Amino acid sequence: MASYVRALYEFSGEPGTSEISISVGDVLQVTRTDVGEGWWEGKNKNTGSVGLFPAAYVEVMSAVEAKHHQQPHVSQSVSDSHHNTGRYDSTADDYNDGDDWEDDWDDDNDTYSEIGPSNSINSKITDKPFPHSGSNYDNRHLPATPNEDNSLPATLSGNNTSTLKKSSMFGKSSDSFILGLGNKDKLPDNELVKIVPNDTYYQWQTNEGHSYSVIVASPKKESKFKGMKTFIAYQLTPSFNNISVSRRYKHFDWLHERLVDKFCLIPIPPLPDKQISGRYEEQFVEHRRVQLQEFVDWVCRHPVLSKCEVWYHFLTCTDEKVWKLGKRKAERDTYVGITYCWAISPPEKQLLQSFVDSQMDSCSHFIHMMDVSVRNLLAISNDMAKKCQSQSKKEFQRIGDGFSDLSKSLAIDERRVPSGNKSLADSVSKVGDIFCTIGQHFGDQPKLDWIPFSDRLHIYRGILNSFPDILSTHKGAMQKRKECERLAAEQKMSNSQMVDVNRRTDIVSYAVMAEMTHFRNEREIHLKQTLKSLIEEQIKFYTDIVSKLQDAYAQFN
Amino acid sequence: MASYVRALYEFSGEPGTSEISISVGDVLQVTRTDVGEGWWEGKNKNTGSVGLFPAAYVEVMSAVEAKHHQQPHVSQSVSDSHHNTGRYDSTADDYNDGDDWEDDWDDDNDTYSEIGPSNSINSKITDKPFPHSGSNYDNRHLPATPNEDNSLPATLSGNNTSTLKKSSMFGKSSDSFILGLGNKDKLPDNELVKIVPNDTYYQWQTNEGHSYSVIVASPKKESKFKGMKTFIAYQLTPSFNNISVSRRYKHFDWLHERLVDKFCLIPIPPLPDKQISGRYEEQFVEHRRVQLQEFVDWVCRHPVLSKCEVWYHFLTCTDEKVWKLGKRKAERDTYVGITYCWAISPPEKQLLQSFVDSQMDSCSHFIHMMDVSVRNLLAISNDMAKKCQSQSKKEFQRIGDGFSDLSKSLAIDERRVPSGNKSLADSVSKVGDIFCTIGQHFGDQPKLDWIPFSDRLHIYRGILNSFPDILSTHKGAMQKRKECERLAAEQKMSNSQMVDVNRRTDIVSYAVMAEMTHFRNEREIHLKQTLKSLIEEQIKFYTDIVSKLQDAYAQFN
Repeated sequence: MASYVRALYEFSGEPGTSEISISVGDVLQVTRTDVGEGWWEGKNKNTGSVGLFPAAYVEVMSAVEAKHHQQPHVSQSVSDSHHNTGRYDSTADDYNDGDDWEDDWDDDNDTYSEIGPSNSINSKITDKPFPHSGSNYDNRHLPATPNEDNSLPATLSGNNTSTLKKSSMFGKSSDSFILGLGNKDKLPDNELVKIVPNDTYYQWQTNEGHSYSVIVASPKKESKFKGMKTFIAYQLTPSFNNISVSRRYKHFDWLHERLVDKFCLIPIPPLPDKQISGRYEEQFVEHRRVQLQEFVDWVCRHPVLSKCEVWYHFLTCTDEKVWKLGKRKAERDTYVGITYCWAISPPEKQLLQSFVDSQMDSCSHFIHMMDVSVRNLLAISNDMAKKCQSQSKKEFQRIGDGFSDLSKSLAIDERRVPSGNKSLADSVSKVGDIFCTIGQHFGDQPKLDWIPFSDRLHIYRGILNSFPDILSTHKGAMQKRKECERLAAEQKMSNSQMVDVNRRTDIVSYAVMAEMTHFRNEREIHLKQTLKSLIEEQIKFYTDIVSKLQDAYAQFN
Repeated sequence: MASYVRALYEFSGEPGTSEISISVGDVLQVTRTDVGEGWWEGKNKNTGSVGLFPAAYVEVMSAVEAKHHQQPHVSQSVSDSHHNTGRYDSTADDYNDGDDWEDDWDDDNDTYSEIGPSNSINSKITDKPFPHSGSNYDNRHLPATPNEDNSLPATLSGNNTSTLKKSSMFGKSSDSFILGLGNKDKLPDNELVKIVPNDTYYQWQTNEGHSYSVIVASPKKESKFKGMKTFIAYQLTPSFNNISVSRRYKHFDWLHERLVDKFCLIPIPPLPDKQISGRYEEQFVEHRRVQLQEFVDWVCRHPVLSKCEVWYHFLTCTDEKVWKLGKRKAERDTYVGITYCWAISPPEKQLLQSFVDSQMDSCSHFIHMMDVSVRNLLAISNDMAKKCQSQSKKEFQRIGDGFSDLSKSLAIDERRVPSGNKSLADSVSKVGDIFCTIGQHFGDQPKLDWIPFSDRLHIYRGILNSFPDILSTHKGAMQKRKECERLAAEQKMSNSQMVDVNRRTDIVSYAVMAEMTHFRNEREIHLKQTLKSLIEEQIKFYTDIVSKLQDAYAQFN
């Protein structure tokens, strides 16, 4: 189903680009929302032009309103509907939600009516002991009205500095930031993040004393519309307030999209794969809970992600109206993508080009190699889990059944001529039972070793997947700096401008290096713990097998 | 290559049967030697008639002699040549022995020239501490000249009581024995075997104080004809004289045939399967040694088999000429098949028909069920061995390689920014090595658990395979007794004859029951030990895995 938006502000598309112009009140049919950097693609129903426009300049129309603009044959955007976060009106959009329980991942555009304190404590947002205030989502006005330095040549800055630059945001190009364009509103202090040197390198300043954890617990089957619609809600309880909130997978999905949009230099851990729950829903739901816990843990451990506003909103908001407001604001956040770099405060020290180059080359090589090995281990882990659950289980049960059959045949002869000896048939029968039990243990074991291992590797694979884009964004920044150096050499750019360009390029480099440090720290603790857990569970498992085999052996003494 | 024999004695074939008549000096071309019960099939070159004749009435001609009788186009018997034990002349028969080493099972008709004391102690046969004397192979003259009671009706005894009855021997029919026909020469005492009652049943009288063991050791590659011909010879050392003899697989094969011929009521353990050794000859030869040891152990434990003459000859003969003599005599033994029952001395007590019937029904059911379950376990065991050797080995090595790759990628990042911490890459690398080692252990393990288990089950399968024939021979005896009962009721058989018939039928029943007791005792000790060994080896194996995993875990502390 296509969605429709109405232009709230005027926007002039840059000629020669794929931008289109919109006037206040224009209705647009949205065809893509995953363009990135705050841009959407659509068709202006008033002018007929098709192209990109800033998502922040429009508001999504209600389904009832939209129906007047809908063409009966339009269906191309259905497959993208789960990316469409722009439809806010609830009343008419729930008509296709009947299969929500079966398709937990389906983007049913419900009203988030389930949001609320699951433990009945309706905490006030202003009570929270968190560095954000609930109201600072309004600190910035939309749309942005940058006050740019127009002394840059037209070829670099474009001739319309009052609008967002599609060319600087599409594909996460870092140009706009490097050139000092885009949103430069004063950022609230709590949005600022610092990069500081450590013993050997650079790192995000950690939130000393503010670290916290969040428990994802008790997936519950909830319902609304008098039971017409059921869904699974997970209870999230942060350690800093101990107040649970109820969140569905689709809320996680929405949050994830926000984080990915906002932090183009920070890899966002992946959510569990979207999939149909199928018949084993209890196991599926519980497993998804574990996977969501992994996601939440990773975000909590990250010094930047763990204190960002949209995450906090997701963790704490218990009021439906406040949720909607926060949701809208987060979707209109302009400090997203490369623009977010304005929030980063790097060390004073200017970076050496050669140092940065060698660091990035090494990172790129490392990320590629680790990605390959993690994918390989994930495939191994999945294969091992499957193998234990089916093949090994069957093999040992086959051995057990084989002994049971042998026992039954021996019993025939023991009935023929009974003797006072201990029955061999009985002993063999017990050995058969023990092997069947071992088979059952093989089947149950992956839940304790390989599946949790796979869940962890899934996170690593997602993180590693994000790095190439990050490194490519960094590369773009470096190239832009080289262009500027040429301009400066040709006296087309002032020295002070060039100093700023270098400073901003360093911010991108520092951010990538800080992120590499964070990833290293994660591995030193988290990956190590992952491997330890895997091996520990296998030790327990094989120890248990030994003990069971000793029981079997004892049958013959 | 067909073999030729010359008639030593006159024999008149019974008209209307497949027997042929032979006169002293007639040359016969042998076409089958596996007819059973001392009968061979062949063509009388002098009369042209084709059919069965007693093998004991002929002597095998030398190859040189035989060549005069050989037709160039005769080739049908080549495939049967390994059954042909009748060619003793060595000089001309070795021309096709070149591939003997490759095809260890091939019946190259060599001269047994490798027979001799492998430990250089040329012991005299007469020195041996065994209840047999080396010369008593000559105690009976051949052919048999039975002194039968001719008062039986012609329809039962046949009209030519001076010859062996093909009808009574072919297919192991017990008729001749039940009717008191066939060889009744005085048996030497050491050939007599007793069946005695035990606490609950009947058993073969055991050779108290005469039990012994034989070690099958050191398979050696030997050669003859100046290295033109090589073969594997196993060294057998009985505990009663500690003198090693050197035996090839073909000698075992010959022995096995003799035992099967002689003991139609005792299951003979099977030899290892005939197979090409292929490229892994060392492993193959060693494995065959273990399998031959299993065969030898089983025979040694059997109260009847372990004291029989041909077995003793096989175990002790170190002189080539004596070997040949013993071999010939064994092949001409007339106390074979059902005729061997003359050697059995049963308890006095007459058996109740109903008791025997229920025992045999139960045996038959048991043997069938145990056969099915042993075959099934053998398939499982073979599958498990294969699975460990290939799949499990590969799986764990794949895990190990996966960790090694991960370690290599981690090392790249550790080189980028070295730190004082213990290298995670190093730890992961060691874990990878440990998993590879575990994989190697999986590959090696079947040699210690599943393969020995399979070897044991192979013996059981062979034993169980023999029982249906034994039970069928018993059934035949019971039917013959019923016929006799009818004859007695019709006054066509005297009461004293009927008493003898019952006595002889009981001998067959007692023999089967004694054999069932022996099989039970074997299981109580041998099968139990087999299962214990399997489980014990698995305990060791999994304990070892636990220990290796603990090493892996320690990498992270």
